[in-house]
Amino acid sequence: MSTTKGLEGVVATESKISSIIDDQLTYAGYTIDDLAENASFEEVVFLLWNKRLPNKQELAELEKALFENMTLPDGLVEHFKSYDIHNVHPMAALRTAISLLGLYDSEADEMTEEANKRKAVRLQAKVASIVTAFSRIRDGKELIQPKQGLSYAANFLYMLNGEEPSDLEVEAINKALVLHADHELNASTFTSRVCVATLSDMYSGITAAISALKGPLHGGANERVMSMLLEIGEVENAIPYVKEKMANKEKIMGMGHRVYKTGDPRAKHLKKMSKELTKKHGMEKWYEMSEKIEEFIKSEKGLPANVDFYSASVYHSLGIKHDLYTPIFAVSRFSGWIAHILEQYENNRLIRPRAEYAGPTKQVYTDIDER
Amino acid sequence: MSTTKGLEGVVATESKISSIIDDQLTYAGYTIDDLAENASFEEVVFLLWNKRLPNKQELAELEKALFENMTLPDGLVEHFKSYDIHNVHPMAALRTAISLLGLYDSEADEMTEEANKRKAVRLQAKVASIVTAFSRIRDGKELIQPKQGLSYAANFLYMLNGEEPSDLEVEAINKALVLHADHELNASTFTSRVCVATLSDMYSGITAAISALKGPLHGGANERVMSMLLEIGEVENAIPYVKEKMANKEKIMGMGHRVYKTGDPRAKHLKKMSKELTKKHGMEKWYEMSEKIEEFIKSEKGLPANVDFYSASVYHSLGIKHDLYTPIFAVSRFSGWIAHILEQYENNRLIRPRAEYAGPTKQVYTDIDER
Repeated sequence: MSTTKGLEGVVATESKISSIIDDQLTYAGYTIDDLAENASFEEVVFLLWNKRLPNKQELAELEKALFENMTLPDGLVEHFKSYDIHNVHPMAALRTAISLLGLYDSEADEMTEEANKRKAVRLQAKVASIVTAFSRIRDGKELIQPKQGLSYAANFLYMLNGEEPSDLEVEAINKALVLHADHELNASTFTSRVCVATLSDMYSGITAAISALKGPLHGGANERVMSMLLEIGEVENAIPYVKEKMANKEKIMGMGHRVYKTGDPRAKHLKKMSKELTKKHGMEKWYEMSEKIEEFIKSEKGLPANVDFYSASVYHSLGIKHDLYTPIFAVSRFSGWIAHILEQYENNRLIRPRAEYAGPTKQVYTDIDER
Repeated sequence: MSTTKGLEGVVATESKISSIIDDQLTYAGYTIDDLAENASFEEVVFLLWNKRLPNKQELAELEKALFENMTLPDGLVEHFKSYDIHNVHPMAALRTAISLLGLYDSEADEMTEEANKRKAVRLQAKVASIVTAFSRIRDGKELIQPKQGLSYAANFLYMLNGEEPSDLEVEAINKALVLHADHELNASTFTSRVCVATLSDMYSGITAAISALKGPLHGGANERVMSMLLEIGEVENAIPYVKEKMANKEKIMGMGHRVYKTGDPRAKHLKKMSKELTKKHGMEKWYEMSEKIEEFIKSEKGLPANVDFYSASVYHSLGIKHDLYTPIFAVSRFSGWIAHILEQYENNRLIRPRAEYAGPTKQVYTDIDER
């Protein structure tokens, strides 16, 4: 036995959900380019859960079920008012809210396939309401109920802002949701699979996944990209800033990826949205600054931009608070986590590796006066 | 690359905390027999966190810090009264309470070594209060504050029952806490390490671990052993019951272990406690029944009893509600989870294995009318 740190390159499971092969990402065999150009987030949710695209009736049923399940238990709304909401990490708030949501679901521990599919819809529906409710309660605003006839992406923006979003805004959020929905055995997905391989319930698996996505090495990158852009401030400062960071051997956020070597196939779609949205909202400088940094880092270090890099300026130009970027990532990734949890249940085995002991040996308990 | 299902036999990390070698369990080099016979749970907590036993002053400081941190925020007590406490899984309640506790800790996201050590003490102290508060609120009883001068084990029973436990009761709970404190890379510990390898915070790591321990393949075994004993009812029914189960190819709970082949070194200590406690409380039949089953399964299937088997009759004879067995396991295992989280932070690398794709390929998006 030899230790593979971080399990790099170790294959931990088979999966039919998504693949990353030759720097191409697919969901159930559809390339991410194809889906980003054509699919609604609801279609992608169906695809990840069923390994095929829905027909008209199936899609309509899922859309209806998601809409109807967006309502939150009163206790959850009260919960957001019960602690100091201005001083908590939004991902810690989401972790707690989802765990609490499980206490309101009488089917939480019902492990049949049907019950798990119902919980899947409930969780995917309610996470949009939870993230937007958190944001509005924090801002001292009234909650907005979802509007019938709006897509999941549109309702998310509607519940967040209280006004119907433009087509371009919906397109941007829909694409962001499609692009972040799944990513093979990333750290949060792997956390959820290790968790539910004990046959723990779906709320536990999702709570564990949120707990992992909260970590800055995983979910927080786009927020930190935006902090960097704000620190740079103006386009002409971009290259000097990056050069100084590189001289100090500091990391530039949003560049490179452990799995993709030649480039992250998701980045170009958000780059295009960033260009259009920043132009429409008179915020071109964030796009231009990003593009300059991308080109510079690519030529100097060979590192291309990853999915986080342009999502920063996309979300910023939509007026979304920076600390909600990771929760929005979670709203999308719920679909992938749920797909992986369902897949784990289908053919389960406890995930229990070994550790190699490297500590002291042959110790003997001595009386405390002799220590 | 080949897939190792459940990562069986794969070494995922080095660790200095505990080892399982030749069916012997050690904590930082001390055999579990040595510790079960001699150590207090507080000494074991110190040992797991520092890889050596405390001297007199260090132990006194830890005992004081644990006692002083047992108080819960008012919001947490209110929280237990905010949902239908009679109809939730106690581990789901614990998962939520610990996640919520993080929202009350202004240091939750402070990642210095010092802040993490303070959080370690807070979490270890408060989990005893949380589990006992949950139980008392569920029973409609007043909360009991911890009593100065009592050990951690004694205070746990005192806060649970409202009366000072006997020496034998304290010895039993102390031994149970010592024996369950750590167990190398078990599924919940591995979940917590995967989670915090994203550099997520300690509350997230512990919440994820609870989420995994909740699963029946991990934490629920002793509760199910007790269900079995109650179903059997009388000593003379034990062997016929077990024979029938075996004829139906059903699993007998509490027997065998994936890692131990010749026997679980923890079992004998709880067996001894079970014998003494059931005798003292006039409940000998649960011990006698257990012993009969153990001997029969060992001779028939070669499977020795594991740690869960005799903990069932120990907890039952202490009058502890059956659905609190896994939360008590958690109270003990917090010490190990925390040790592993601190060790992961010390020398971190993101834990991100790969999946082997086994789904459809080369799919192309088609218009919905054509599906």
